[in-house]
Amino acid sequence: SKASNGSSIQKVMSHKERAVKCCHPLVRSLYSIMNDKETNLCMSVDFTSSEDLLQLVDKVGPHVCLVKTHIDMLEDFTTDVTQQLQRLAHKHNFLIFEDRKFGDIGKTVHTQYQGGMYKISSWAHITNAHPVPGPGIVSALAEVGKPLGRGCLMVAEMSSSGNLATGEYTKAAVKMAETNKDFVIGFISQSRLSADPDLVHMTPGIKIQMGGDSLGQQYVTPKMAITERGADVIIVGRGITGVSDPVGAAKEYKQAGYSAYLNTLNH
Amino acid sequence: SKASNGSSIQKVMSHKERAVKCCHPLVRSLYSIMNDKETNLCMSVDFTSSEDLLQLVDKVGPHVCLVKTHIDMLEDFTTDVTQQLQRLAHKHNFLIFEDRKFGDIGKTVHTQYQGGMYKISSWAHITNAHPVPGPGIVSALAEVGKPLGRGCLMVAEMSSSGNLATGEYTKAAVKMAETNKDFVIGFISQSRLSADPDLVHMTPGIKIQMGGDSLGQQYVTPKMAITERGADVIIVGRGITGVSDPVGAAKEYKQAGYSAYLNTLNH
Repeated sequence: SKASNGSSIQKVMSHKERAVKCCHPLVRSLYSIMNDKETNLCMSVDFTSSEDLLQLVDKVGPHVCLVKTHIDMLEDFTTDVTQQLQRLAHKHNFLIFEDRKFGDIGKTVHTQYQGGMYKISSWAHITNAHPVPGPGIVSALAEVGKPLGRGCLMVAEMSSSGNLATGEYTKAAVKMAETNKDFVIGFISQSRLSADPDLVHMTPGIKIQMGGDSLGQQYVTPKMAITERGADVIIVGRGITGVSDPVGAAKEYKQAGYSAYLNTLNH
Repeated sequence: SKASNGSSIQKVMSHKERAVKCCHPLVRSLYSIMNDKETNLCMSVDFTSSEDLLQLVDKVGPHVCLVKTHIDMLEDFTTDVTQQLQRLAHKHNFLIFEDRKFGDIGKTVHTQYQGGMYKISSWAHITNAHPVPGPGIVSALAEVGKPLGRGCLMVAEMSSSGNLATGEYTKAAVKMAETNKDFVIGFISQSRLSADPDLVHMTPGIKIQMGGDSLGQQYVTPKMAITERGADVIIVGRGITGVSDPVGAAKEYKQAGYSAYLNTLNH
């Protein structure tokens, strides 16, 4: 890392360096995994069957740093699923990210994060929150997650067409992150929002083939996300889960994402 | 209704008139209940035990037009709970509103609304959504909910301190509602946002004693919400569920809310 201004340092700081230098232990773990497994790929597993989910995670686990769930999509959820998921996370050395997109007042999200059927805070290393309710959402989630060493991403930008996470809204999300780094570990974003290397940028809506779906999703390629938009982690869902050879696809995304990352180190 | 401009018509149009004139059958049902039971009170039941929830709903049901749930707070959820809730809705003539605050891209919320353990669309007459993902969230939820006669509220404003649902964000939410009236039936708001009498304004964060909590919630009184802020329905949670005599409190809120409503008719 030769540059002296924040923005350039952050661009060229390697996974290996961030695995040592980042403040939050969870962020160091994540970068350590990324460095060891040579992957910046997060797989999004939007399944309705627990067996389908666990089987795919077991196969693709070796190629990802993070597995992203929507636990409330499972038709047959039991606590056994999250136990199995934790076992697979240990076996394949990845972290678990429940994409809950909390969006309520503090008192409510506190219970939703800790309690209910899902007890998200007990098994998900990472979750995320919309900034729209204001800073109370972060303090409430932190009350639950901080003692457990959990981390939260702010949904600062979205990939869907016509979304409202722009301008002052995004700036407010960045501020909530930068002022709560003991619990907020980064962003769901479509561009580099903070020069602070402690904050991880994760970008969803990634596909090797660009395009969209019929419900407003808009895709970008792994290379675009990492090289042009400054993503640290690329989140791929249907590009892996929706094809006939998910393991092959995962390897392809891993390769595309990692070589784009290596490329940023040389600039 | 004597006034000739939209804003005044909407202010003075009675529940009885709206029960006949509103476009959406669900809105007509809601106003018909409000007129018959002389209540504009929605009770928010944030319980972790199904038995506690059902017992209170059975007691307070006669005094409310709407029961608002956070179904994912229940530690012991089974499909029997939502069946019992529907039975109570029929017994006491109220509607059910699952306060899910959907906030994801279209494809995701489609599954979250229809599927998973909760099958929200199968039992909740009303749900709500953040506008932040853009119009795709409405089209996706509508694909599920419209054929079932369900309705959705846009979270256009929030009650929590420092929230970002203001200005252009709120305007975009209003536009999403006004252009999707076959499924969007109104707003979660803190003020009157649309002159269209088809759109119901529901205001949370209501307490007879003003103040706040330690996690950013800010309360207003029933009278303020209805008279000054143009709420059609007041949403009361801890003001009823957090006191020693919830039925007595519900009657008090019903009375305060309804007399404030009657007062608006005389202006």
